[in-house]
Amino acid sequence: MSAIELGPGREFDIIRTLLARWGSRAEGIGDDAALLNVPAGEHLVASADTSVEHIHFERAWLTPREIAYRATMAALSDLAAMAASPLGVLLALGLPRSWLDAAGEIGDGVGDALDVAKTIVRGGDITGASDLTLGFTVLGSTAAPLRRNGARLGDTVYVTGRLGGPGAALAAWLRGDAPSPNARERFARPVARIAEAIWLARGGARAAIDISDGLLADAEHMAAASGVRIQLDLERLPLFEGVTPLEAVVSGEEYELIVCAAALNVSAFERGTGLLLTAVGRVLEPIPDGIGVTLRMNGERLAPVEGFRHFS
Amino acid sequence: MSAIELGPGREFDIIRTLLARWGSRAEGIGDDAALLNVPAGEHLVASADTSVEHIHFERAWLTPREIAYRATMAALSDLAAMAASPLGVLLALGLPRSWLDAAGEIGDGVGDALDVAKTIVRGGDITGASDLTLGFTVLGSTAAPLRRNGARLGDTVYVTGRLGGPGAALAAWLRGDAPSPNARERFARPVARIAEAIWLARGGARAAIDISDGLLADAEHMAAASGVRIQLDLERLPLFEGVTPLEAVVSGEEYELIVCAAALNVSAFERGTGLLLTAVGRVLEPIPDGIGVTLRMNGERLAPVEGFRHFS
Repeated sequence: MSAIELGPGREFDIIRTLLARWGSRAEGIGDDAALLNVPAGEHLVASADTSVEHIHFERAWLTPREIAYRATMAALSDLAAMAASPLGVLLALGLPRSWLDAAGEIGDGVGDALDVAKTIVRGGDITGASDLTLGFTVLGSTAAPLRRNGARLGDTVYVTGRLGGPGAALAAWLRGDAPSPNARERFARPVARIAEAIWLARGGARAAIDISDGLLADAEHMAAASGVRIQLDLERLPLFEGVTPLEAVVSGEEYELIVCAAALNVSAFERGTGLLLTAVGRVLEPIPDGIGVTLRMNGERLAPVEGFRHFS
Repeated sequence: MSAIELGPGREFDIIRTLLARWGSRAEGIGDDAALLNVPAGEHLVASADTSVEHIHFERAWLTPREIAYRATMAALSDLAAMAASPLGVLLALGLPRSWLDAAGEIGDGVGDALDVAKTIVRGGDITGASDLTLGFTVLGSTAAPLRRNGARLGDTVYVTGRLGGPGAALAAWLRGDAPSPNARERFARPVARIAEAIWLARGGARAAIDISDGLLADAEHMAAASGVRIQLDLERLPLFEGVTPLEAVVSGEEYELIVCAAALNVSAFERGTGLLLTAVGRVLEPIPDGIGVTLRMNGERLAPVEGFRHFS
């Protein structure tokens, strides 16, 4: 597909700014819709994910480039959760006047994420807005999707990476402090675990979800979808430096993966991907009180805690 | 694909409200991403389109149900512009607190549009927002897409329907009046011309665009994409009651189609679809001043006028 000449107008000036930053990382822009092909025999995987100023981030915390990188990766993480390979993204950009000067930097941040995830922009939409709104639709494909309803009794529950960094950064900002450089970096530069998810699907995982709301809340989603209970052993959690297990289970926007499998070859995964994989719990029978996730510390069950909630 | 049990949380309560309104008009909701299949041999067509309060509509003008219907149809119109059949939509809903009570009505409006376009919701995303934001990604497929860059020298330019109704309604609201019932209805209840576009593609059309910015502005986009000039004969425009030709060419959000073809069987189209199809101009060589669309009235060329611009 060749690029299409854009007509006149201010919206198109912003699109031209973005296209200049994206170069070959944008394709087929300028028609009413993107045209693309799904590999024969594969399912299309499609997900919408929106990052909104004052809800998901504050301008004071990050650069525009980091904000856009992070929003793009957050969206791409839904492809990882399904073990899908990206086909491209659509960007619905709500750009307030006060952010107009940052359009180029926003383009660069999206481009950084496209590079890491090895994908491209296929189209989008620009409107005005009161708050910066980065709405993505991510498109991917897979022959064998991982879903959140595949957890089975007796499965082991694994998580990738170390948990708690984004929560530590957020907690620092919310109390008026600067986060540690490492926590800030972990918040600003998440990586959608796409290649890792495909490895895990091939290696025997049968359910997955990405951690956007926190290990506890997302394990609840997986437990509800699968009709099971998930028991997490807090002393086994892979912790970000200086973070407690209870902070780690409510740390959102990790974009690490929770996967369930009868068994996974942890050392082969870690050698192949360079990423930590840790068994942190087990899939059990549901219990009468309906709680989907139970927490244990050194074998002793803890009282329920509230997960991190996005909607404010 | 079976529905997935949703976990706890306020975002999920809103999703449950929407799902209750949609019933069988929603499918596969609740996983990290939607899974769907594109018919073998067809291209995937994907487009993002966002309607934002205070930019595309005001709450005082329409009911929440009408606002949601209109936003859904506006998005689906991009599939019509490509002559694609819908596979489904993703809804990225930005819901301010002040609109929480209207979530059910918004669901009904989306559902009304799904019924008219014979498609379903495949997934989405809900966040808070300062202004009601209805972000849609529409997914469709076609073996033979119509694009905006297909106009060829000597083609006739056609439009569907009658133009000027939405512009008349908008003008009335902006000057503080109530629009006529017919103009209000035309603004509130657009119909994406999906079946009509597929008819036109089969009947010989080789370029198409939907009228969202106004006939003049969208013809400019088509002319720029095709590297041609489009000459419109204003005395031939099919006018909405009480509207002048110059009002009709800048009336946006019509969601009628502009198509170019060597020739189309107008009476067969009108018999088959019940919709007006009118030859309104011709595709000509570009001219040195670079103007993509020239307007004539009874054979006499008019000075350029400004098109309707969304971005404010």
